[in-house]
Amino acid sequence: MSFHASIITLYPEMFPGPLGLSLAGRALERGDWRLETTHIRDFGEGRSRAVDDTPSGGSAGMVLRADVLARAIDAASPADDARPRLLMSPRGRPLSQQMVRELAAGPGVNIVCGRFEGVDERIIEGRGLIEVSIGDYILSGGEMAALVLLDSIVRLLPGVMGNALSGETESFETGLLEHPHYTRPAVWEGRPIPPVLTSGDHGAVEKWRRQQAERITRERRPDLLK
Amino acid sequence: MSFHASIITLYPEMFPGPLGLSLAGRALERGDWRLETTHIRDFGEGRSRAVDDTPSGGSAGMVLRADVLARAIDAASPADDARPRLLMSPRGRPLSQQMVRELAAGPGVNIVCGRFEGVDERIIEGRGLIEVSIGDYILSGGEMAALVLLDSIVRLLPGVMGNALSGETESFETGLLEHPHYTRPAVWEGRPIPPVLTSGDHGAVEKWRRQQAERITRERRPDLLK
Repeated sequence: MSFHASIITLYPEMFPGPLGLSLAGRALERGDWRLETTHIRDFGEGRSRAVDDTPSGGSAGMVLRADVLARAIDAASPADDARPRLLMSPRGRPLSQQMVRELAAGPGVNIVCGRFEGVDERIIEGRGLIEVSIGDYILSGGEMAALVLLDSIVRLLPGVMGNALSGETESFETGLLEHPHYTRPAVWEGRPIPPVLTSGDHGAVEKWRRQQAERITRERRPDLLK
Repeated sequence: MSFHASIITLYPEMFPGPLGLSLAGRALERGDWRLETTHIRDFGEGRSRAVDDTPSGGSAGMVLRADVLARAIDAASPADDARPRLLMSPRGRPLSQQMVRELAAGPGVNIVCGRFEGVDERIIEGRGLIEVSIGDYILSGGEMAALVLLDSIVRLLPGVMGNALSGETESFETGLLEHPHYTRPAVWEGRPIPPVLTSGDHGAVEKWRRQQAERITRERRPDLLK
């Protein structure tokens, strides 16, 4: 069974979007992963298919109803679904490469995309949603975050990356930010490629790359070294 | 002049993508912001329009050439361009809501989207690129990160959000993660709305929300309280 992603959203037309192109798009065509969307609007209340209502206690904006979301989630994800149910939310656990790897090794994901001021808190407990954040900033909804999460997962699925080695030296996979890259031309606008890289001494190249990765990580993200 | 975004990419067809829908899409139609793409391939070398080459010093993958990227960047962004030139990169400065606000208050952005193993390091210094990271995970390219960055910016532009108040109580804008939200029905699957929210006592509601935001931030992200 290939990796199975179900998106619960008010904007199903955003999917696959950019994931329909490039590496992820070719993998989707080959069936290396599957993508389904469930439109929350189809589970709305009454003739207007209302999905939201005003916040209890007052304030600006609207809140997605727990009962409406529950019907949409239950349609996408049966009670015995082995796939985790995620809610993209700035309050969530920060997404890490470790979390991406764990999700990519599993059967798939359900992803609930919030909109407006957020979702009724009761749906989180009622359906066991795991809140995941892609970063400390606010988006217009969970859809863009879901695209990011899926892109990070899909590139790790078997068969998706042409060169399996390619993933292993990247930032975070080694615990460090990545070393600098160079390619032809040998000199560009007066700037040469560092001589060690064209020395042919593989040991020296590896040592230089490791030192550069350590230096860049120390300068930019000392928090990663702890 | 409205906010002006220029994307330098190998996948111009990914834009506006999801940004063509919902709030951001309507704002784009109204001219509240402008989006242009520059296709790196158009500035490639030779008849095959090559944009990349093998890494100096050896290793898997390919590196985007500095000379090709420079031609694409120079076409999108003149030397006296007041807009910053950003490179989406996991080695970059972590995107924060503060950075989003600063960018939204400016004239626009140029966003270079890396692909493959990355870009030749010399282009970063040669064209003054500012590396920005949307989080500690690896994507298949900079395009998805550019979509996230633009979504976060566009919602802050004048006229884009229907209710201007709506942004101010959200996560990070107060320095805390957001308090829980509730809406009708009053009881869902045996779970009632917290009584304080239906008490009509606005002071008590505000106090409860503040306490909840502090509790959630302390439990989930004590790093934000430092």
